[in-house]
Amino acid sequence: MNSKPSTQSEGRPVKVDPSAPDFSHRLAQVAQQVETFLVGRLGAEVGPGEIVRPPRLMEAMRHAVLGGGKRLRPFLAIETARMLGGTEAAALAAGAGVELVHCYSLVHDDLPAMDDDDMRRGKPTVHKAYDEATAILVGDALQTLAFEVVADPTWQPDPAIRADLVLGLARASGLGGMVGGQLLDLTAEGRFGAVDLDVDDTLRMQAMKTGAILAFSVEAGALVGGADAGERAALLRYGHALGQAFQIADDILDREASPEAMGKATGKDKDAGKATLVDRLGLDGARAECDRLVAACEDAVSQWGEKARVLRDAARFTVARKT
Amino acid sequence: MNSKPSTQSEGRPVKVDPSAPDFSHRLAQVAQQVETFLVGRLGAEVGPGEIVRPPRLMEAMRHAVLGGGKRLRPFLAIETARMLGGTEAAALAAGAGVELVHCYSLVHDDLPAMDDDDMRRGKPTVHKAYDEATAILVGDALQTLAFEVVADPTWQPDPAIRADLVLGLARASGLGGMVGGQLLDLTAEGRFGAVDLDVDDTLRMQAMKTGAILAFSVEAGALVGGADAGERAALLRYGHALGQAFQIADDILDREASPEAMGKATGKDKDAGKATLVDRLGLDGARAECDRLVAACEDAVSQWGEKARVLRDAARFTVARKT
Repeated sequence: MNSKPSTQSEGRPVKVDPSAPDFSHRLAQVAQQVETFLVGRLGAEVGPGEIVRPPRLMEAMRHAVLGGGKRLRPFLAIETARMLGGTEAAALAAGAGVELVHCYSLVHDDLPAMDDDDMRRGKPTVHKAYDEATAILVGDALQTLAFEVVADPTWQPDPAIRADLVLGLARASGLGGMVGGQLLDLTAEGRFGAVDLDVDDTLRMQAMKTGAILAFSVEAGALVGGADAGERAALLRYGHALGQAFQIADDILDREASPEAMGKATGKDKDAGKATLVDRLGLDGARAECDRLVAACEDAVSQWGEKARVLRDAARFTVARKT
Repeated sequence: MNSKPSTQSEGRPVKVDPSAPDFSHRLAQVAQQVETFLVGRLGAEVGPGEIVRPPRLMEAMRHAVLGGGKRLRPFLAIETARMLGGTEAAALAAGAGVELVHCYSLVHDDLPAMDDDDMRRGKPTVHKAYDEATAILVGDALQTLAFEVVADPTWQPDPAIRADLVLGLARASGLGGMVGGQLLDLTAEGRFGAVDLDVDDTLRMQAMKTGAILAFSVEAGALVGGADAGERAALLRYGHALGQAFQIADDILDREASPEAMGKATGKDKDAGKATLVDRLGLDGARAECDRLVAACEDAVSQWGEKARVLRDAARFTVARKT
């Protein structure tokens, strides 16, 4: 994606300034908090109810999780909770849970039997750095750890919120969400036989594969922040629009960016013959759709005024990011 | 394992009668309840928060979960809760959650990169009946579903119990429990380089790979049944002894049973050069150790007198089963 905001096609100027020092600083700051939290969860010492933490497994889990990624999902959870006045520690734990699910899905998606990718975030994928069996187990254990972190009373004393977070995370990431979306993605590539899928099928697949978890990140912040029903509905609208914008931006990046800049293979959608919104609308049209979705995000959080500035910036960042 | 109880080596007669009509009937009855519950969770209709349930994924998940297995883990959870006077529906949901974790682990353990098994419960394994990518996603989605079921308020209104169940299930099945145990199992087979492991290493691996989840099944019943601290400690002792007995019985079966009777490959431990307790104690010695553990199970639940009859029978069944 080019670095200039391309809003001319819709005529509605959206100020895309993700490099604003305060936003970039805040994003990096939260990423550091998340990193510290995850380092603490992936140490050598056995936790309660555990027998042994096998060193090879722990090392490979750290390889999969630490030192990479923008941590956009925990950022959304934490900033949403902050906006609502929720406890920071509780939001951090919830956000880290979502990030662990995201990381597990990357490890499994990269496997030879799935997308067969060698590089991720500029490093060898887990099955390349270790082996396939280890990578399968790393993904499995990361998913388990996600639910453990979210259910742990250390950071969130209220069991009703913890149980709701577990339920929401499971629904967003399971058979009718992220995992189901990955299966539909393989289907779209003709893995299970010839298919004839249109752009709407792709949009539905994307809504499941990446949208559901992004939207849940915002919902997690709403749960931790004690949002009422009306606030939750508004934040859910924000989350869904953000998820869609994220995916279209991804499609544009996949078409435009170099593998070097992305730290992973690009152009795979086109190679796989997958119809995306870029095919229907063209690059300029897709960028205009991104801008429309950013505006929808801004509209959804308008009731919080200046307090919602970070969430508005996050929506702009989502469509303007270069990796 | 032969069908006669072999207690002569210890001189202490243990009445092993798992085929007692009432026990077999009760086991089959609970298995049917579990089956019905799981069928309901694996239907075509989308649940709350879901977008689409891809038919191929659902079909493969049903293949992995339905129509097989003794359902020993949910049986333990349900019978423990019943003994304590807990709600049946809540115990069923908790037990089904444990069973889903067990099923997911079988699907992933069978993968070519792991144990590479073609048959399971007398049927082709998921990656044989479908393909590897589908099998990976089936395992992932079954794990997610396990946590969803356990966190769902439909069957257990108390969020504190639900959050505790999620936490306990995660700890028993994650990096310091079941998944860690599978990695240690592959390590023991020399998968990651030459190793020199003794019987104690194998026992620790087994305690993680299968023992932790069996013990948690009992704990889940205790949580649902509202056990106090003393009762929980006693039931945990029962669960740990039962887990050990189960594993030794498995080692004996692996050495003695035919693949036809087991519905899966046997003799794999010996082929893989894995040292088990059978190597240290011999077959008669291992059987005597099973009897000792059954006695420990009986002792642990003695405070419940006649109410604990099913749990005592379950311990005997665990060592006398032929598959």
